[in-house]
Order: sequence, then structure tokens, then C-alpha cells
Amino acid sequence: MKSLSIRVGSESTSIAASAGRDRYRVAPIILKENVMINPSKKEVSLGFIGLGNMGLPMATNLLKAGYQLRVYNRTANKAEPLIAGGARSVSSPSDVIEPGGIVFSMLADDVAIESIAGSNSDFVDRFAGGGIHVSMSTIAPQTARDLAEHHAKRGVAYLAAPVIGRPDRAAAGTLFILLAGESNAKQMVEPLLKNLGQRIFDFGEKPWQANVAKLVVNFNIAAAIESMAEAFTLAEKEEIPRLKIAELLSETLFSGPVYKGYGDLVARHQSEPAGFRLRLGWKDMRLVLQVAQESETPMPIGSLLGNRFLSALAKNRADLDWSALALGASDDAGLTP
Amino acid sequence: MKSLSIRVGSESTSIAASAGRDRYRVAPIILKENVMINPSKKEVSLGFIGLGNMGLPMATNLLKAGYQLRVYNRTANKAEPLIAGGARSVSSPSDVIEPGGIVFSMLADDVAIESIAGSNSDFVDRFAGGGIHVSMSTIAPQTARDLAEHHAKRGVAYLAAPVIGRPDRAAAGTLFILLAGESNAKQMVEPLLKNLGQRIFDFGEKPWQANVAKLVVNFNIAAAIESMAEAFTLAEKEEIPRLKIAELLSETLFSGPVYKGYGDLVARHQSEPAGFRLRLGWKDMRLVLQVAQESETPMPIGSLLGNRFLSALAKNRADLDWSALALGASDDAGLTP
Repeated sequence: MKSLSIRVGSESTSIAASAGRDRYRVAPIILKENVMINPSKKEVSLGFIGLGNMGLPMATNLLKAGYQLRVYNRTANKAEPLIAGGARSVSSPSDVIEPGGIVFSMLADDVAIESIAGSNSDFVDRFAGGGIHVSMSTIAPQTARDLAEHHAKRGVAYLAAPVIGRPDRAAAGTLFILLAGESNAKQMVEPLLKNLGQRIFDFGEKPWQANVAKLVVNFNIAAAIESMAEAFTLAEKEEIPRLKIAELLSETLFSGPVYKGYGDLVARHQSEPAGFRLRLGWKDMRLVLQVAQESETPMPIGSLLGNRFLSALAKNRADLDWSALALGASDDAGLTP
Repeated sequence: MKSLSIRVGSESTSIAASAGRDRYRVAPIILKENVMINPSKKEVSLGFIGLGNMGLPMATNLLKAGYQLRVYNRTANKAEPLIAGGARSVSSPSDVIEPGGIVFSMLADDVAIESIAGSNSDFVDRFAGGGIHVSMSTIAPQTARDLAEHHAKRGVAYLAAPVIGRPDRAAAGTLFILLAGESNAKQMVEPLLKNLGQRIFDFGEKPWQANVAKLVVNFNIAAAIESMAEAFTLAEKEEIPRLKIAELLSETLFSGPVYKGYGDLVARHQSEPAGFRLRLGWKDMRLVLQVAQESETPMPIGSLLGNRFLSALAKNRADLDWSALALGASDDAGLTP
């Protein structure tokens, strides 16, 4: 299997550039010297690390689109459906890498990605001086900054590409992708990302800015959950059905998935099954508060959301959907269902 | 001019009921005895009190729809465009009333409506034992409760019909109307309200519940303004353009007029011209907090919004659009533009 080599061009790659531009969904690969190659999908071997609730459907979509995949997951049996579909499972994260290739990672948190791709691993060396790491996890901007520097030292492009959407969107390929990093590398991965998401938002050249943007979105979702929780609780006290207010908001000035989807969950106090666990929401909220502290940005709603999360954890709600954050307002009002 | 008499039916009204049902846009008028009349629009005289930023375009739409209007405004010259269109201006609020008729009011606050329609005025007596008062102001649920009782004692139906939307929607006839009160009365005014709004949400038989619902919507708008303000401020500290985050929210999970419209205003710090003055927003926020106190509903976001409003007033921002609430987050972060 030929890897997607991102190194100095040869005669054959220059020929492919003029011939095959429109034949493949893979974008022209632009090398530093502006020599392009256009490998067919079957010739492109991609690496994918992290096959959780989000990673598995994303990797599945790349496989379905016709790419060759080398995959790794800590608990190996998660890879089985992909292997059945033609992917190759490897036994260490760095083994998904081919020299000059493209590797995606979708991991649970900062610790996971640092241990796999940080300076204590052989990860960046395995790219052999080229290639791209598309890091899709929701992590701290500071972690992204550190990883980007570490990758750059070995000639590997680090792209941040955190996503908006839950597993259902990942499966449908309708995620929103926040992409930031070196321009040529972004251009190379865009055709691949189009198999995963409905739209790519370009956040410029600094990878960590995409991570900030992602955190900001999750902050706004949590703020909307709490706002609806307080509103519905007030209505309930006045004997107005919670769902009636959810409908009023989402069918007037608050259309859109958050007020519609979470509005319904919050109104019904329905927090199972968990589309996004409260414990993961708390991870993101902590990152928001961490960035706020580092940048000296008072966030009064942020602070109170932090306390709502702590209270939810204290009440054993960590494994419920994070819409269970809304139980706090009901608890406080003596209305816990 | 014949008034829309809502009293015991006569032979002529029963005849009209069988003959004219489909000929007019006015709904069949259902009397207590289930006798219907169908006056033509030209025969229906409606009263309208309060010709401010909202009332004037609403009254204009009723006039355009073909109804006869008797109008009152504290500063009389506001009525001039309506008089030019055929409305009759009267010199006291109660003079818009004809026995058994329908009167709309759209006033600035609780004090205004209580002084006009409360127990110290001749307002309800002028209906002569029938008729409907459609009270569209955003007022305290307790005020609505008091007014409803006072009206009921004299056989007048009190309907709460607060609206969602700013003057542009009022002019376009695309308001959302939250309607609550006695069922027959609601049925009678619905055809009239359809000239003012794109959709009517029925909040049942208790008028004050529509007022609670309206306050809850405004609370959620203020909460969204503050949430965006904190989010954009954090992004700005991380050198991400505020507008880029506004776009990200409104084009992914937060579509809908609030995140789109206010998102743009908040991102640009554009709070003039004032579509809805901050001082009016504070009036509504105080009502939210008042209901919350009366019903023993802790609202942590509500409390902090109250303080944001107080700070905005202290900084002479009362006459800016209430999106100027968002300046608080920038002030706190040392980023005031």
C-alpha cells in the first residue's frame, strides 16, 4: 500500500498533477515546492486513533468513502467493525503512522492525546519529517499550543479540527468542523474532512484558536441549558407546562438545534440515554474556566455553570446526559421530579 | 357607526349568523347564549389605547385591514397618521370604548395600564356590562390577575395578549402573540389578532400565564445576550474576532433570530439605534425577578442579569438598545471599546 507521501516531488507526481486533478475526491496535494500529486483513494493510507462514540462513526465514514485505514484504539475490540470493512488494526498508536502520511486522532481528553502524541512518545518521529496530524479532540488551547510546537520541530503539521455535534451527527457525516493550522496542510485535509462534516469553519493559522472556538460553543450550550432550566422552573411554579415554554422558545426567537433539542430534554427532565455525558461536559467547562483565568476574563455565567457542574457531580449525575445540569434549578426550587 | 355588541342576541343577530358566516374576515361572534352575529369590518369599531413604538404600527395594521378605529394616546399628535387613515382620535382613554366593544391596549408599564383600566377609573364601566379588553402590554402577572378580576366583576372579558417582537415585526404584522383568557373572548379576537401577528400561542384560560410566558422569553433573550457577551469576550482575549464566534454560533447550533440578530449587535458593540431600550429591558427583568421571588424560584442567571442591568443603568446606558447589556462583560475584562 502506497502512503500519501508529502515530500519533495518526483517526476511521476508532477505528471499526476496535470492529469488527475478532477478524477479523484482527494485534493491536489501541494508540496512545499508546489509540486502536486493526486493519488487515488485506494492508494491513500490514513491513520485513525481513538474509536470512541465519536471516533468510530468518523473512521467508518472515511472507510466508506474509499480510503485505506490503519486504526488504533486502547480497547482493541472497538476496531472490529472497521476491520470487517477492510481497515487494518495496529497495536500501538504510533503504528497507524506512515512516513509523510495523514493521521486523525479523536481522544477523550488532554491526558490521552499528550500521552499518545506528546514529547514522551515516538509519535512525531514516525512521520519521518513530513505529514499531518489532524487533532479533533476537544482539548485545552494550551495543550494544542504545546503539541503544535512539538510537531513543528519535526516537520509535522499539527491541525486542530475539533467538531461540533454528537454521535448521531458523526454517523451522518453532518458534523461542523472548526479547522485551524498551516494553510497547505488544511487544504490537503479538507477533502477528507468533507466525509465527516457538513461544513468546515476556518479559524486561521493558529491551531489553538479552533480549540478556543470549540470551548466557546460548549459554554454557550451549557448556558442555554441553565437559562432554559431557570425559565422552565419559573413557569412550572406558575402552573405553565415546561414543554409549553420549550415550544414557545424554539418556535419563535430560539429556533435551532440547541433550544429545540435540549429544550425538549430539559423540559422533560430526560437525561438518558446520554448523548454527551455530564462528566465530559464538566471537562469542557473546566477548560473554559481555565482559559478564562489565564486570559483574565471574568465570566459570571461561566462561574455559576462551574458550580452547577460540581453540584451535579456531587449528586451522582456524571453519567447522565449533560442536560441533567438543568436538574439543579429544579432542586433549588424544591421541585425535583 | 354600529358597535360590535356583545350582548344577548336579538332576532337580527341570529339571522346574520346563518347568512354571513363566510362573507367577512371577522369571526362569528359567539354570545353567551351561542347566538352569533357577523358584522362587516366597517361596522366594527375597535378601540386602541397606546400609540408608542409598538402600538402605532399595530393600530395601523388594524386600520389597513379595514376596521374602524377609535384611538387614544397620551401625547395626542402620535395619532395623526392614523387620523389621516380614517381613525377617530378621542381625548380620554375610556372614550375609545363603546358598550360591548373590543378595546386593545399597548402601554409602557404596569402603572400606565393600572391608571387607565384599574379600579380608580371608569374604564370597565364604559363597556356597559359586556365587551373585551385585549391587554397587550408586558406587565406583571400580578397586575394582570388584579385587572382580570376587576374586569370580570363588570362582565368584561380581560385577555392578556403580550407580544414577542420589536417594532419592525409590529409593522410587518409578524409578531408572535401569547394569548390567554376566557375561551369565547379569545375566539372572537383571534381574527383581529391575525392582522398583527404571524402566530398566536394559546396559554389557556388564566390571563396572567401569558404574562409569565412573555417574561420568560425576555429573560431568555437577556441570558443569551450575556452568554454571547462572555463568549465573545473570551474569544477576543484569545485574538479571535468576535464576529467569527457570532457567525459560528448562529450558523451551527444557534440559528434563530436571537443569536443571529443580537449576536451581530453584541459582536459589533452596536447598541444604537435602540430597537428595545435597555430601560424597558430592565423593567421586564425586574418583573421576572419579582415573579421569581413571589414563587420562591432561585434564578442564578436571573440574579446576575439583574446586576448587569443595574450596572448598565449606573453607566448611563438606559437609552441604548438592551444589547448594550453585553458591554458589562467587556468592561469587566478591561476591553471596553
